[in-house]
Amino acid sequence: MTEPLRLGIAGLGTVGIGVVKIIRRHAALLEARTGRPVVISAVCARDASKDRGVSLKDYAWETDPVALATRDDVDVFVELMGGHEGPAKDATQAALAAGKDVVTANKALLAIHGQALAELAESKGSVIRFEAAVAGGIPVIKSLLEGLAGNEITRVMGVMNGTCNYILTRMETSGLPYATVFKEADDLGYLEADPTLDVGGIDAGHKLALLASIAFGTRPAFDDVKLEGIQRIAIEDIRHAADMGYRIKLLGVAQRSARGLEQRMTPCLVPADSPLGQLEGGTNMVVIEGDSIDQVVLRGPGAGEGPTASAVMGDVLDIARGLRIATFGQPAETLEPAPSAQTGLPAAHYVRMSLQDKPGAMAKVAAALGNAGVSIHRMRQYDHTTTIAPVLIVTHKCTSSMLEQALDGLDGTGVVEGAPVALRIEEL
Amino acid sequence: MTEPLRLGIAGLGTVGIGVVKIIRRHAALLEARTGRPVVISAVCARDASKDRGVSLKDYAWETDPVALATRDDVDVFVELMGGHEGPAKDATQAALAAGKDVVTANKALLAIHGQALAELAESKGSVIRFEAAVAGGIPVIKSLLEGLAGNEITRVMGVMNGTCNYILTRMETSGLPYATVFKEADDLGYLEADPTLDVGGIDAGHKLALLASIAFGTRPAFDDVKLEGIQRIAIEDIRHAADMGYRIKLLGVAQRSARGLEQRMTPCLVPADSPLGQLEGGTNMVVIEGDSIDQVVLRGPGAGEGPTASAVMGDVLDIARGLRIATFGQPAETLEPAPSAQTGLPAAHYVRMSLQDKPGAMAKVAAALGNAGVSIHRMRQYDHTTTIAPVLIVTHKCTSSMLEQALDGLDGTGVVEGAPVALRIEEL
Repeated sequence: MTEPLRLGIAGLGTVGIGVVKIIRRHAALLEARTGRPVVISAVCARDASKDRGVSLKDYAWETDPVALATRDDVDVFVELMGGHEGPAKDATQAALAAGKDVVTANKALLAIHGQALAELAESKGSVIRFEAAVAGGIPVIKSLLEGLAGNEITRVMGVMNGTCNYILTRMETSGLPYATVFKEADDLGYLEADPTLDVGGIDAGHKLALLASIAFGTRPAFDDVKLEGIQRIAIEDIRHAADMGYRIKLLGVAQRSARGLEQRMTPCLVPADSPLGQLEGGTNMVVIEGDSIDQVVLRGPGAGEGPTASAVMGDVLDIARGLRIATFGQPAETLEPAPSAQTGLPAAHYVRMSLQDKPGAMAKVAAALGNAGVSIHRMRQYDHTTTIAPVLIVTHKCTSSMLEQALDGLDGTGVVEGAPVALRIEEL
Repeated sequence: MTEPLRLGIAGLGTVGIGVVKIIRRHAALLEARTGRPVVISAVCARDASKDRGVSLKDYAWETDPVALATRDDVDVFVELMGGHEGPAKDATQAALAAGKDVVTANKALLAIHGQALAELAESKGSVIRFEAAVAGGIPVIKSLLEGLAGNEITRVMGVMNGTCNYILTRMETSGLPYATVFKEADDLGYLEADPTLDVGGIDAGHKLALLASIAFGTRPAFDDVKLEGIQRIAIEDIRHAADMGYRIKLLGVAQRSARGLEQRMTPCLVPADSPLGQLEGGTNMVVIEGDSIDQVVLRGPGAGEGPTASAVMGDVLDIARGLRIATFGQPAETLEPAPSAQTGLPAAHYVRMSLQDKPGAMAKVAAALGNAGVSIHRMRQYDHTTTIAPVLIVTHKCTSSMLEQALDGLDGTGVVEGAPVALRIEEL
């Protein structure tokens, strides 16, 4: 194959421009590595007059992404617009229907419509690649889909939202409360226009659904991801966790057991001296566990022009080299509907509550936990100057449903103020 | 493609048996992922009567690896014998000459004969894959060759000999001297039959030469790897390094600059709080830096039945899926002869010496360094009860040739006992 591979790039934001820059800067290198020129035929964005810091005059300009996606001189449609409905979805479908390959950074689109798009792609002999959709520049999709394909995967975990990890580590180092650090992150431009996508765990949940599909041969099922954001994490939780040798991370975990497929994107405690516990700032990390590999940890930049464009280019170059692989690693029709686990595997939990300081209060707490079958591994009551005592409990292993029953019981004691904060402790 | 992919496996040690086990255990999973059965036609080892804990009766048995490699019912020759001459080389050449693909875990063979073998493979339209040759189960070859192929790679680093890392971390935690911990490692069966392969850095040096070739588009050039083992590392060095916030690792570094290609496998100081500094025991870690990606860190088991077999299977499944890629990422004839750097990029260095405790001694040391253009960043002289004072110097950045000149100068002062220990401090 010495024919050029011709790209149509839709979306000229940070990532799109990053891709254009790599192709311009490394034309010779890319041709040496793939044996054929990689060229851009056309680009598409709303505003053609905007100065994007790189010359686009060699490329045809389309204002309609569907028109771009179906051009005769486009072999690969590179979708970098984002959004799980509207133009991104329409153009991706049009590209696939026209027999084009698709490279995308769009986690929402694939987490929600991945099954249908994969079926469409396979019916046309096209491929969809999405390394840039998960954990930025880290080659995690490739590792899971290809490098570790000889493994039965047992668990996939990841810190995959740099903004949340920035907020949590900044709270710890500065001692500032969530609201203040959230404001800082917003001022620094770290947050999505809708910040719930970040701090509510939605963005990271999309990524987890994609990893789970590849790992377990199931249909992507974002709706089954248990989502909990970091908004309720107080500075006290971060301090208490540190006291006990843990750090709090917004951690995605996908795990398959006899109970079904468990997908969680929730704040968890992880050992402070583990690779996940040591992860600082906006960096991402994915942990893959398999029956032969034991554990592999991948760490790198989760966002940004260069890293995300690097991931897009990895997919483009695979296509240039002739790699044809099913979207989620096996034919879409063989992906099983993900049987969602009703209750997760047992784990120790961290529970923090505000307890009324009066005789018998602690006995009521202990009884509520005991009635739910939850036993106490460690407990601390902290100094207090008011009539409300901060109480911290680490449970022995229990299921999430047992924990919920215990929390309901605590609510019924009449001695616990507000809702306790309960966080899973993830073993590594 | 629904034809089975048929393997011939030469070498039924730990890794070979691991591969057999995966293929037997996961036949359905592997077929789902590749769209075709992956089967073993024949195996080869010296002793057919030995109980290897897994049934081999379904496979033809060959005693001659060349005969195995050229069987009509073998599509992929899986070379797990080891050794850079003799049967491994002969059978690999025979397989390629017969148009077979080759999957190998043999770092020495490829580091030394990789260029010739790659040329032979390409002349026959065959591929050679070698994920298992570098860093065990970590998908590092795939990440560098494919996932990060859109980057100009700027540096590759790795801790890739688990035995050395075990010895160094065990020295630190136990406070025991090198000789004692070396003996422990030997008793535990961690060392190669020729332990110099491990502690002399040769095994890890082979791996570095392979990474450098892919990273920089150069011919594998093991002879140009600057090798230094860990045998000279004293418990004092480990303690001093820790005092200053560093840890000592047998670290491979490949870097290309205007000076040429630098390949080093030497003990280095790395920041204790960096991912490399935090690496404990037998685990491996590879750090890849590129112009777009910034830095990606991959961590995982560097040896053992499961992890190494997982890497072999990753390559086998790529071939089953139809991925055809040049051995070192671009056609062998386009790989440049590696222009070896005569002197490395400047770095700070750690120097420990035993200084005679007499007037003017320190002045002579300072003069020797100054005459070589090496300036002192930090210096400590430790308490001592004899007439020999332990002296520790951290230099400002200097080249390795400046440092060698300084060490020659120290030798000429007549006040330094024995040879100083000098270690590079690698910035991360």
